Amino acid sequence: MAHQATLQFSTRGRGTQDITGAVAESVAASNIVCGIAHVFVQHTSCSLLITENADPDVRRDLETVFARLAPDGDPAYRHRDEGPDDMSAHVRTALTDTALTVPVGGGRLLLGTWQGIFLWEHRTGAHRRSVVVTVLG
Amino acid sequence: MAHQATLQFSTRGRGTQDITGAVAESVAASNIVCGIAHVFVQHTSCSLLITENADPDVRRDLETVFARLAPDGDPAYRHRDEGPDDMSAHVRTALTDTALTVPVGGGRLLLGTWQGIFLWEHRTGAHRRSVVVTVLG
Amino acid sequence: MAHQATLQFSTRGRGTQDITGAVAESVAASNIVCGIAHVFVQHTSCSLLITENADPDVRRDLETVFARLAPDGDPAYRHRDEGPDDMSAHVRTALTDTALTVPVGGGRLLLGTWQGIFLWEHRTGAHRRSVVVTVLG
Repeated sequence: MAHQATLQFSTRGRGTQDITGAVAESVAASNIVCGIAHVFVQHTSCSLLITENADPDVRRDLETVFARLAPDGDPAYRHRDEGPDDMSAHVRTALTDTALTVPVGGGRLLLGTWQGIFLWEHRTGAHRRSVVVTVLG
Repeated sequence: MAHQATLQFSTRGRGTQDITGAVAESVAASNIVCGIAHVFVQHTSCSLLITENADPDVRRDLETVFARLAPDGDPAYRHRDEGPDDMSAHVRTALTDTALTVPVGGGRLLLGTWQGIFLWEHRTGAHRRSVVVTVLG
Repeated sequence: MAHQATLQFSTRGRGTQDITGAVAESVAASNIVCGIAHVFVQHTSCSLLITENADPDVRRDLETVFARLAPDGDPAYRHRDEGPDDMSAHVRTALTDTALTVPVGGGRLLLGTWQGIFLWEHRTGAHRRSVVVTVLG
């Protein structure tokens, strides 16, 4: 059995947005009791992340580390058509996840207490992002 | 069809633990012949990894590299409530995987000869970790 | 319902190869309308990547960045049995993905316009690589 929905999110530039509630709604709508929820971004310059949902400093520190691993405007980049945050966004996406999966049990997401599902915008400007949620059981 | 089990593992601080056998047991118990096995850690400071199962130096070298990419006690971190290995553990988790999936064929995990499934503890202290295995077919 | 096929690819040393078409053929052969496609490499020194399929400079820049994150012949590596690109290949695999999942809707892969699925060879020499595609619905 499979249930599928495409969700739209507006981002406000680089940063994370908690989408756990929206994914949980798709799980509830699916009526699937046991299986997995699959979340997928249809883009190559934003990604998905499961990380701590309590202290927002965790996500701020992740930005700090990823800015080192994939600096904006690196002179080594050849791909810079859309500005200094274009290639760095692709690198950040490659280092994290385009797709995420979470187990579903008892009809709900089996996340740990401190786990949240985040949409991570890597471009500095605001974007409209499509996320496909598929629940399988 | 979906089969699900929650497994508990005790870690002995930072390092990897081969959990391939435990995942294979869930696959056998599921009686699913063709599909995928989904493995998920319910935590944000440990992760899952598929890597070489033969030479333990591979996992030692991975520790060396990840200690550079996400150093403990980095002065740039704001989140340090639980000590110098707290934020670095979140970064290591973001760079690797909270969820892993492996194909199931002929009723068993279709891993390559040299592939093992490892639980990677990123905190320096021992922890009890919950891993949800879901087999779908 | 599950459909499974093992595909073989010949790589020509380090670099990316677009395998979107081959995965799409498995989806078509499965007759599954709604679900997910699961792609898995049975190796620990190559990986899978979803990234921009338009400008090849994106993949060239990814090579540049990953060569910094996981340098060949790093004197810190203990595992060097198969040469200077052996351990760096394992690190690159750990930082990217052994398994990828893409939603299937209307009987086809629901990739975004600019997304391609790439097999990323991390060894400098040519290899024969096995990729298992499982379509679930």
